[in-house]
Amino acid sequence: MFEDIMNRVVEKTPLVHCITNYVTVNDCANALLAMHASPIMADDALEVEDITSICQATVLNIGTLNTRTIASMIKAGKKANALHHPVILDPVGAGASAFRTQATFDLLKEVNFSVIRGNISEIKTVYAGSGTTKGVDADIKDVVTQSNLEETIQFAKELRRQSGAVIVITGAIDLIVDEQHAYIIYNGHKEMSRITGTGCMLSAMLGAYAAANRDHLGAACACGVAHMGYSGELAYERILREDKGSGSLRSYIMDYISKMTPEMLNGGLKIEVR
Amino acid sequence: MFEDIMNRVVEKTPLVHCITNYVTVNDCANALLAMHASPIMADDALEVEDITSICQATVLNIGTLNTRTIASMIKAGKKANALHHPVILDPVGAGASAFRTQATFDLLKEVNFSVIRGNISEIKTVYAGSGTTKGVDADIKDVVTQSNLEETIQFAKELRRQSGAVIVITGAIDLIVDEQHAYIIYNGHKEMSRITGTGCMLSAMLGAYAAANRDHLGAACACGVAHMGYSGELAYERILREDKGSGSLRSYIMDYISKMTPEMLNGGLKIEVR
Amino acid sequence: MFEDIMNRVVEKTPLVHCITNYVTVNDCANALLAMHASPIMADDALEVEDITSICQATVLNIGTLNTRTIASMIKAGKKANALHHPVILDPVGAGASAFRTQATFDLLKEVNFSVIRGNISEIKTVYAGSGTTKGVDADIKDVVTQSNLEETIQFAKELRRQSGAVIVITGAIDLIVDEQHAYIIYNGHKEMSRITGTGCMLSAMLGAYAAANRDHLGAACACGVAHMGYSGELAYERILREDKGSGSLRSYIMDYISKMTPEMLNGGLKIEVR
Repeated sequence: MFEDIMNRVVEKTPLVHCITNYVTVNDCANALLAMHASPIMADDALEVEDITSICQATVLNIGTLNTRTIASMIKAGKKANALHHPVILDPVGAGASAFRTQATFDLLKEVNFSVIRGNISEIKTVYAGSGTTKGVDADIKDVVTQSNLEETIQFAKELRRQSGAVIVITGAIDLIVDEQHAYIIYNGHKEMSRITGTGCMLSAMLGAYAAANRDHLGAACACGVAHMGYSGELAYERILREDKGSGSLRSYIMDYISKMTPEMLNGGLKIEVR
Repeated sequence: MFEDIMNRVVEKTPLVHCITNYVTVNDCANALLAMHASPIMADDALEVEDITSICQATVLNIGTLNTRTIASMIKAGKKANALHHPVILDPVGAGASAFRTQATFDLLKEVNFSVIRGNISEIKTVYAGSGTTKGVDADIKDVVTQSNLEETIQFAKELRRQSGAVIVITGAIDLIVDEQHAYIIYNGHKEMSRITGTGCMLSAMLGAYAAANRDHLGAACACGVAHMGYSGELAYERILREDKGSGSLRSYIMDYISKMTPEMLNGGLKIEVR
Repeated sequence: MFEDIMNRVVEKTPLVHCITNYVTVNDCANALLAMHASPIMADDALEVEDITSICQATVLNIGTLNTRTIASMIKAGKKANALHHPVILDPVGAGASAFRTQATFDLLKEVNFSVIRGNISEIKTVYAGSGTTKGVDADIKDVVTQSNLEETIQFAKELRRQSGAVIVITGAIDLIVDEQHAYIIYNGHKEMSRITGTGCMLSAMLGAYAAANRDHLGAACACGVAHMGYSGELAYERILREDKGSGSLRSYIMDYISKMTPEMLNGGLKIEVR
């Protein structure tokens, strides 16, 4: 179902400006190249506006934030807003420190995000800082399961209304909520959590998917989530066959990201649309 | 002999706060995940205390130190001391610049370390800054061999007394000295020095081993050193079989870190306890 | 033809000081170790002179530059000049932002480079800032092909005269110009652009090649370019055979960098000297 979404990335080869953490930055750059997009990492306040201007999307990831780079993120985000570029927020670890939570709130106040992607716990922190309900904890569990799925969808819909952003909640079950739909993706494998970076890579990839599919942001994000998840499944099957471990899993996820075609993805896609 | 040590890590899945260098940070995060622990990398002075507080161990690695991150390391180390968390020092390159040596001395003055891990040259610099003998060079060679092993053990014991930390000296022969024992590990392969990061990864892993085995720090460190060393041996054998080189060696070391079980490790362990 | 060039690196195992970006820094360190050299990454202004002094070459890469690290680069470059060490410039993204272009110009003004390596677009920006023709765009295309090769050689020769540096322009066709010769290298594969870091790794490797071959800088750079390019070809052939993708391509390039011998390279070298 995502042929056009994927093909547009290959046709447009979007250039994506990432201000991101130094733990997984190499994986983010390689994930973008693997999917036929291009990365630029630049975080000095004196150049982020220039760099954002030559790109087609901006990805802000607070994984190893500091006072210098938060200022750069806000500057880049505002510029991207002025240029009507999609802006993606990955609020890594929001809630883990007061500093990180405040940085998330500041970003939400200063920048209009097109997509916000995190795990349920990070997204709940975003929710607390994104509207009139500020400070009120979302009354949902920290793991998304079939039993609380509908409840989580309603929560994501409310956050979407408040923030204006497509909401992407990843975990054992992945959830993408836009104005019309909730996409539920069952791809992925739990062993993907034995390596760092799949979340950050996905956020970077959503930058490229959004840039190439600006009129279909929700579907573009669903496709990106499935692209990553199914790559993880195929990679895990291959390490089992070859008796390998988490180092090879990391390489093979990138292999499948780079090899994924619309036909392959359709063959493995496990999706429900509500 | 390390069944309980290893099993406790898998049971407790410790969260380890790393303030570390940007060269090998991805490897450190992946090594922790591979061994069923979890990493958090955070280095801004405004959040390091919060982050350390939610973790069970703190790892300070000065590989790409700067004035900003040294202040953060001291702050995190003091907080970890206050919380009685194990704190690991990896004094990368201590002795290579006056700045790096001074930073090492400052850390030793401000923070009580549970474990100090480095090569013999780095550990000699630590020795110079860790007690009454400040400024006096340790009169031992820069390579640990069978012929100077006993002398090196005595040196490590003195440093242990001065610093209160378990001393881990890695090289062709690895040495771990706690209050009661000297563990000598003969695992590992010289080709491991053809990739960067095995030392940094080991220090991160020692954070997880220490957090899960607080009453057996010396044995926990010996187990961690053997875990890394034997993973390197197995990885090297596999690249030989598959006619590969140092890129695959890096992936395969991570593979074996993630696949290592107490039974596997016992089968390959080359250890002497004095 | 490069036996002596390669053998000298293995004999001298040069230590290379890199001030480089955090995207590909791990790849740079591993590439140096793979070729039997050693890396030190250190970027604080308070230690860069000490670190440069114990090394045999200095590599300055502006991939994720900021005001703090530019100052460190200038300081390290000046110190390396005073010590007559080879200094390599990789002007990543020069021209993409005013800040990056100005940093490139500042580096060219303050530091004498032995080698400047970039793609044609970056090298044109360098040209604009490196002499009396400042501000005048080089009148050549942004892709080097057979039809504009001679013209590009003349352009590189002029830049060499202005800057005093060996000029290395990489792309589909690679070009190395020193005082006597133009080396044209046809190794490499276009799929190498599907991973990040091959350019940065090459610049780091040129540091080691230059350090070990100070009287043959042009030939040393040509050898380095061929070493990387042929490693890429072999890696690409292997991922095709094994049905893999860009994650494995990255590992296998490193494998072949580490396995390359003078005999292997002679067997695959595609070079023209004018």
